[in-house]
Amino acid sequence: MKAYAEMSKEELKQEQKSLMEAYDRFQALNLSLDMSRGKPCKEQLDISMGMMDALNSQVDLRCEDGTDCRNYGLLDGIKEAKVLLGDMMENHPDNIIIYGNSSLNVMYDTVARAMTHGIMGHTPWCKLDKVKFLCPVPGYDRHFAITEYFGIEMIPVPMSAAGPDMDLVEKMVSEDAAVKGIWCVPKYSNPQGYSYSDETVRRFARLKPAAPDFRIFWDNAYGIHHLYEDKQDYLIEILAECKKAGNPDMVYKFASTSKITFPGSGIAALATSLNNLEDIKKQLKNQTIGHDKVNQLRHVRFFKDIHGMTEHMKKHADIIRPKFEAVEEILDKELGGLGIGEWTKPNGGYFISFDATNGGAKEIVSMAKKAGVKMTEAAATWPYHNDPKDSNIRIAPTFPTIDDLKQATQLFTLCVKIVAIGKLLEA
Amino acid sequence: MKAYAEMSKEELKQEQKSLMEAYDRFQALNLSLDMSRGKPCKEQLDISMGMMDALNSQVDLRCEDGTDCRNYGLLDGIKEAKVLLGDMMENHPDNIIIYGNSSLNVMYDTVARAMTHGIMGHTPWCKLDKVKFLCPVPGYDRHFAITEYFGIEMIPVPMSAAGPDMDLVEKMVSEDAAVKGIWCVPKYSNPQGYSYSDETVRRFARLKPAAPDFRIFWDNAYGIHHLYEDKQDYLIEILAECKKAGNPDMVYKFASTSKITFPGSGIAALATSLNNLEDIKKQLKNQTIGHDKVNQLRHVRFFKDIHGMTEHMKKHADIIRPKFEAVEEILDKELGGLGIGEWTKPNGGYFISFDATNGGAKEIVSMAKKAGVKMTEAAATWPYHNDPKDSNIRIAPTFPTIDDLKQATQLFTLCVKIVAIGKLLEA
Repeated sequence: MKAYAEMSKEELKQEQKSLMEAYDRFQALNLSLDMSRGKPCKEQLDISMGMMDALNSQVDLRCEDGTDCRNYGLLDGIKEAKVLLGDMMENHPDNIIIYGNSSLNVMYDTVARAMTHGIMGHTPWCKLDKVKFLCPVPGYDRHFAITEYFGIEMIPVPMSAAGPDMDLVEKMVSEDAAVKGIWCVPKYSNPQGYSYSDETVRRFARLKPAAPDFRIFWDNAYGIHHLYEDKQDYLIEILAECKKAGNPDMVYKFASTSKITFPGSGIAALATSLNNLEDIKKQLKNQTIGHDKVNQLRHVRFFKDIHGMTEHMKKHADIIRPKFEAVEEILDKELGGLGIGEWTKPNGGYFISFDATNGGAKEIVSMAKKAGVKMTEAAATWPYHNDPKDSNIRIAPTFPTIDDLKQATQLFTLCVKIVAIGKLLEA
Repeated sequence: MKAYAEMSKEELKQEQKSLMEAYDRFQALNLSLDMSRGKPCKEQLDISMGMMDALNSQVDLRCEDGTDCRNYGLLDGIKEAKVLLGDMMENHPDNIIIYGNSSLNVMYDTVARAMTHGIMGHTPWCKLDKVKFLCPVPGYDRHFAITEYFGIEMIPVPMSAAGPDMDLVEKMVSEDAAVKGIWCVPKYSNPQGYSYSDETVRRFARLKPAAPDFRIFWDNAYGIHHLYEDKQDYLIEILAECKKAGNPDMVYKFASTSKITFPGSGIAALATSLNNLEDIKKQLKNQTIGHDKVNQLRHVRFFKDIHGMTEHMKKHADIIRPKFEAVEEILDKELGGLGIGEWTKPNGGYFISFDATNGGAKEIVSMAKKAGVKMTEAAATWPYHNDPKDSNIRIAPTFPTIDDLKQATQLFTLCVKIVAIGKLLEA
């Protein structure tokens, strides 16, 4: 099929008519499909059911060092959980705090602590006239929700397949002391599935921040979430690289098992320098006596070690890889060559990112919704929900069944086409 | 034995000599005993081991309403957990949010939220020149740690067996708009084991705060933690009473299962008015996607209902009651009639509170420590660790074995006597 831009008005109108008929047929189906959130599907949850047998009433609930996991204590987590998540995060166990069930909660608390008490003795951010965060776009809506909630000004930074625009990052971080942080999903990024190049990570580690309390919020949410055994992205380990570059305290690195075992019932972790850990614990000891050690032990006993976790991730991949491929196939088939949209084909993570070439993302999402397909709200991937080109839409293929997913994607491409033609006819 | 105050100097010196000999014998034993923290003992933890069998890989992990507890969602907790903890807290399930493993964490977050964002639209506390909390004394050190950490001025309010001095509370709350909160452990208080009288609760509900964002932080940590089946304290339900009094939004009520199942692996809850809940959720949705629903379900399946929980608490009582009684018996026998100390005999909770009549608490704790018995740091029960009479010591009888406990208490009474004689000889 030829590109829409090359079609005559007449051809476009003809195409529009047949597309609208197809859309009407979809509407008549009264669908109720959801491609909006990065949730694992039932089959993915089922592969972790063995975790429910990892502990029982006959099992000794003490750690290797004798600590009774059932009782109070251990602010920063049990040793063997630090080892397991250390291997997962590629960090030394001594650099890790194990938290509760949500890394988002850890990120929120990290910003909240900086607001009220500052970082390592620096002025609390709430006492400053202006605090800014750099936000690679498109990005993760829940990151932006945290910074927006605390009144932190968010500055979009364009993403490429190699990561954020580092010229811009370097310039802003080094020139503006109000820039206190940057949100990063460095591997299989949300929503594009991009992984930062070696050069990008190296340049991150070598930043020369104007603000001594500038921190990189490195949310390595999809560190081991590959789709392909033979096509994996590799990421330079940021803590080590920062240490080498003389910036040992510049990174907070976050991760969790939310998309490894059960979302909401996993364990989260933060890896950072010993100086940062000391600073964090000063606050943390006032907030809690400790996190759920029994659940930490449950995870360790279930996986045994990082090899067990890696094998487990292959099962996830086997379930969701066909879903990603089904979406990509339909996008290729229906939209390939039309010149009205671009999309990513990630090697891991939870999302495919779609960009409507001439805008109209809001209209596309709205049309899909009216036909019973829920997408992530358009512009959710931008700070303040302000996508200047109205182009980005996040596609989350994991949760629906493959049949539902195909139907939903089919409908989605229809909406993309209809909206694109509308724009061309208006022009 | 006659009261020390009635003894001659010669008699006191004679007594001192024999006590020091006894103390030396204790030191030679190289004891290592701990009466410092309110931790359940191993036998208490063992009675909850059935919880580890409540879920397994063959069990359906969906709620009654069909929600898959394994996946993301449900910011405020699963319905059946709200019902169970609602029954435990004597509140309607609709007034409850179920949190993670720590009610201390909920209290911390509640103060943190008030600091950065204010309560129900009022000025964030961090923007005010001065924020004050009333602190019934002696009280819970971890409460005071939170308010101290946020720079909130703490004002001690004397406790009696009926609760805080309500004349003082009413006066300060109604006259000073900087008074934004009060820490309460209304039932089996920490450390005295006192329960607020009906009149006290009624007067709390009828406070007329100068600050519209004044809140009572009602930490009902020991609501069902009775020591005796036939001697239970009853507490008027504060939310209902506040509603009746026209102050529906004045209370945050906290509780958890930390000392019911496993400390650190339980579930926590907050009960409050619908207005407060709405206010809280505006923040909470930025902090997390939800708490650990699988653990919520585990608790519900284990207890089935509040009757199951009540029966479970009798097992705890059977284990710790003899410990409380052993301590009380030794205190009676060794210190009764000497006029050098007073102590409480609670019907529930986790602590016995001791007051040295002529002060010297720090010295007593220090002497005990030198002989291998760790007590809660003296003055920990006062804001800023400032016990003006240097009199209060918290005794935590639950964790040690009964033999260790008897030995530790014996040593403790010896230290009390030695310090008291020292004071009298100095005078």
